[in-house]
Amino acid sequence: MLTIAVDAMGGDYAPKSEVEGAIEATRTLNVRVILVGGEDVIRKELEHHPGWKDLPIEVRHASQVITMEDSAARAVRQKRDSSMRVASRLVREGIAAGFVSAGNTGAVMATAKMVQGMVPGVDRPALASAFPTVKGPDKPVVVVDVGANVDCEPKMLAQFAIMGEAYSRVIFHTEHPRIGLLSIGEEDHKGNDLTRAAMPLLKSLPINFIGNVEGRDLYTGNSDVIVCDGFVGNVALKVSEGLVDVIRHMLQDSLGATATRKLGYLLARQAFVDFKKRIDYSEYGGAPLLGVRGVCIICHGRSTPKAIRNAIRVAKEFAGGGINQRIEQELAAWPSGANGNFPGKLAAGAELA
Amino acid sequence: MLTIAVDAMGGDYAPKSEVEGAIEATRTLNVRVILVGGEDVIRKELEHHPGWKDLPIEVRHASQVITMEDSAARAVRQKRDSSMRVASRLVREGIAAGFVSAGNTGAVMATAKMVQGMVPGVDRPALASAFPTVKGPDKPVVVVDVGANVDCEPKMLAQFAIMGEAYSRVIFHTEHPRIGLLSIGEEDHKGNDLTRAAMPLLKSLPINFIGNVEGRDLYTGNSDVIVCDGFVGNVALKVSEGLVDVIRHMLQDSLGATATRKLGYLLARQAFVDFKKRIDYSEYGGAPLLGVRGVCIICHGRSTPKAIRNAIRVAKEFAGGGINQRIEQELAAWPSGANGNFPGKLAAGAELA
Repeated sequence: MLTIAVDAMGGDYAPKSEVEGAIEATRTLNVRVILVGGEDVIRKELEHHPGWKDLPIEVRHASQVITMEDSAARAVRQKRDSSMRVASRLVREGIAAGFVSAGNTGAVMATAKMVQGMVPGVDRPALASAFPTVKGPDKPVVVVDVGANVDCEPKMLAQFAIMGEAYSRVIFHTEHPRIGLLSIGEEDHKGNDLTRAAMPLLKSLPINFIGNVEGRDLYTGNSDVIVCDGFVGNVALKVSEGLVDVIRHMLQDSLGATATRKLGYLLARQAFVDFKKRIDYSEYGGAPLLGVRGVCIICHGRSTPKAIRNAIRVAKEFAGGGINQRIEQELAAWPSGANGNFPGKLAAGAELA
Repeated sequence: MLTIAVDAMGGDYAPKSEVEGAIEATRTLNVRVILVGGEDVIRKELEHHPGWKDLPIEVRHASQVITMEDSAARAVRQKRDSSMRVASRLVREGIAAGFVSAGNTGAVMATAKMVQGMVPGVDRPALASAFPTVKGPDKPVVVVDVGANVDCEPKMLAQFAIMGEAYSRVIFHTEHPRIGLLSIGEEDHKGNDLTRAAMPLLKSLPINFIGNVEGRDLYTGNSDVIVCDGFVGNVALKVSEGLVDVIRHMLQDSLGATATRKLGYLLARQAFVDFKKRIDYSEYGGAPLLGVRGVCIICHGRSTPKAIRNAIRVAKEFAGGGINQRIEQELAAWPSGANGNFPGKLAAGAELA
């Protein structure tokens, strides 16, 4: 049985969400969970769930907490006994196969990178997020990077492609993932300096690269993986979250306007519940930080118990699926491709490097 | 009465959308329209509308058409009698106050820039798009740039702020437009090299700058103007369009699933129509190219007659509102701000310039 460490002090609703998520996960997923953080508060929360002692749950004390307000760099250096760091250390020591945190995203990334280290061949870890598509809930598209690297070199996008491909294969069982480069037009020459320089590198990789895709392709299901720099990916993610909220509000307003419509709304209510479920990011269970040794899954600060439970599931599948081994092999197999130099091909983007 | 030139050969449904849009505009808006393009096809389309001769509509022949497949740069150089170019020339010559085109976006931008020239003080024209917000259909947020400039220098973002501010004041009657910088976190230091270098420049301008905003703020109505480079802005726009389509599909699927829900859908149908209207980009009537002399409004290739009609309305309000005079004055008033050098302040982003 795999063990996953959970930073129990991270999210906005910590430790409630984390404890309930751990209970739900250990009940249903054949997984062991170590809850890391203030022992007293965690145990107190656990006591609300009679029977927890029969579940494969352990508590590991950590005396410090990294807050959302902490500067990531400083917190990682100074809070050496933070719940986040202790959880990450459990992975490095092989006690846990992966760790999950809904805490300060910058601090989680810095901690995992420093404590767990990187998969050989990877320059920088990248945050991957699964977006729902019209093709259905089991056919999401993986977007890499959604915020770990705001200024990228062309070769980093090539590495993101290899990491995203491994993730899509293992977690979503895609056979030949179609990899797109997020740009502002389909033709090769459309884009900015970065995408134009990355284009030949992506073409040189032994992946199913389908060229430039546009913002609207995030939801069409025409790609399985979309690569972009972390600034653009983060904007795309946040724009989507904002728009879903707005549409929900607008529909509520519209449907409340008259008695007939209200009746319509009542009759259609279950449809809205289903719909919300399909668009709900918590279903996908957090964003994995690809490229670090071991597993690190980063959850939204507002994570519910269900989101934590799903993140534990993803951590387990990630660890069991051998994604990192695959990434390492693929990077090693094409040293002139995604990891080393791209002789002659980097010229166009050299000033970016 | 102001005169607006319309490129009648531009969009996917040309000249039908353009002709019908012109008829609707001249009937309702107190505006004169010159339809530019193949005289025969335009007149043939006009004949479907008995009574058009009583409207202030003129036809101006142009022998060439720039297609969506044409390279913008080449088409602008080689097709000197294109409908787009002739329409733009009518603006330069003072015969029309502005021009509207649903044609090849790159070619429209290049044509307007070359034929009409730039407002003094502007380095590069920028495409502005109005996004709907939760605050209601008359409170959109103006995003600048959504695709004209894919690689920006920090000072360009400062100019976008001044241009977007003038646009928001004149077209949406905002008194003290709140200007945000699109980034990936609210704190000043969050962002990429470009936004961090632009931050002090934006702070130095005499505008109501509210600092960094995130992707989700596109729809909250917390800003009146959001500035970003054209690559990021274009991705944000296309992601939104794609997501709206997907949600519409998903809701249709969900609501068709059972007879009860279908009844619910029928009862709620008008609400969906209202909702679609609020989110419908065609309502806003195209994207103005800010910073060129005269007026240039760029429409979606798939523009309906209603979208063309609304673009004519925006062109008219734009020309009548003196936006360009305002931009010129504001840029001239702060030569050390948005146009000239930023002594000492550019250091952080100097390598980007």
